Amino acid sequence: MITLHHCVSARSFRPLWTLEELAAPYELRMLPFPPRVHAKGYLQENPLGTIPLMVDGDTRMTESAAICQYLCVRHAPTPLQVDPAEPDFGAWLNYLHFGEATLTFPQTLVLRYARFEPEERRQPQVAQDYAKWFLARLRGPEARLEGREYLAAGRFTVADVSVGYALLLAGLIGLSEQFPANVRAYWERLQQRDGFRRAMRAQEKAAGEQGVSLLPPTGTPA
Amino acid sequence: MITLHHCVSARSFRPLWTLEELAAPYELRMLPFPPRVHAKGYLQENPLGTIPLMVDGDTRMTESAAICQYLCVRHAPTPLQVDPAEPDFGAWLNYLHFGEATLTFPQTLVLRYARFEPEERRQPQVAQDYAKWFLARLRGPEARLEGREYLAAGRFTVADVSVGYALLLAGLIGLSEQFPANVRAYWERLQQRDGFRRAMRAQEKAAGEQGVSLLPPTGTPA
Repeated sequence: MITLHHCVSARSFRPLWTLEELAAPYELRMLPFPPRVHAKGYLQENPLGTIPLMVDGDTRMTESAAICQYLCVRHAPTPLQVDPAEPDFGAWLNYLHFGEATLTFPQTLVLRYARFEPEERRQPQVAQDYAKWFLARLRGPEARLEGREYLAAGRFTVADVSVGYALLLAGLIGLSEQFPANVRAYWERLQQRDGFRRAMRAQEKAAGEQGVSLLPPTGTPA
Repeated sequence: MITLHHCVSARSFRPLWTLEELAAPYELRMLPFPPRVHAKGYLQENPLGTIPLMVDGDTRMTESAAICQYLCVRHAPTPLQVDPAEPDFGAWLNYLHFGEATLTFPQTLVLRYARFEPEERRQPQVAQDYAKWFLARLRGPEARLEGREYLAAGRFTVADVSVGYALLLAGLIGLSEQFPANVRAYWERLQQRDGFRRAMRAQEKAAGEQGVSLLPPTGTPA
């Protein structure tokens, strides 16, 4: 049984969404955000203190986009991955990484320096620089989604999970108003998916059962 | 024929190193750093203006760690990738992503706010925050490398290319003095590899032939 350590609407939402799309069994362990501060025992599980941590037997992974790819392989065959023989294999791998490395990290700068740091350490210039940086990088998916419903292979895949989570986070920090047209329509489509909705409900249910706040990672920590 | 757009010792060093390890044919197109500023024509090739861009027929990729995985698949079989049937498959995928998403992005903050921005926009606090952040994340590979020569499957793979490039960059921005012991010894080992040395020579030769400065991305731009 796969165990996923998760905070509400944090990066670990990517593997959660993937598990729901795969209809795979899993156990969800909810943590308050950030666990480094509010659940110090978690450091014994993951010394980096980061979310997610996925445990599957002897396999322990902490990179959300990598876990999505791993889950596809473990539950193959699945249309959620693109086969090397398909023409979009490279584009698929690219957007799987792009969602995290290029679209998510800049948003963590906005979060840190506009919301999380104590008043005297806030850096409005840095938050602005990386909001702008994030929005500029959306040109990639905006062009790619011209005439396409999904990023690769004409179907929903974990590349969409990876980029989709970056769009979810952007909504939570107030950047979705500035999405260009194709990205905006795409994000609407993704939110209609049963798998996305099941993942949202799964984290709400688990948070309630495990007594963890439903505050997303963008909420002001206590 | 694969074309790789590359700046000296930028992230595109990952696919360059991988191509040399694979002994695969490729064409290297050198650009001054950052191309957004010094080679505006490049925006027609890659509207994001980012490095790398790899072109292989109809496949165009911009994420360095994803390109490494793509190159392995295209040149399979190769010991540089870990097969899903091997026990370290998950760890391998994880470190492939970790090298970029977790270890490289924070360093770009150090570069930007300690070196690239004009004096009045520099942010020593942010540069310090992310130098510290980077060094704290090295606890992952430090623990993993206890009793191991490489990150996964008991052999050199593109996970080592991904993390190895992050260590190269750390050396260029003055953080390598603070590497913990296992990471330091590992980085020494990686630099001894023929593939690494060939990649270093390839970029020097191409920079000379194409009239591009050998200044790494950490040099002060003109």
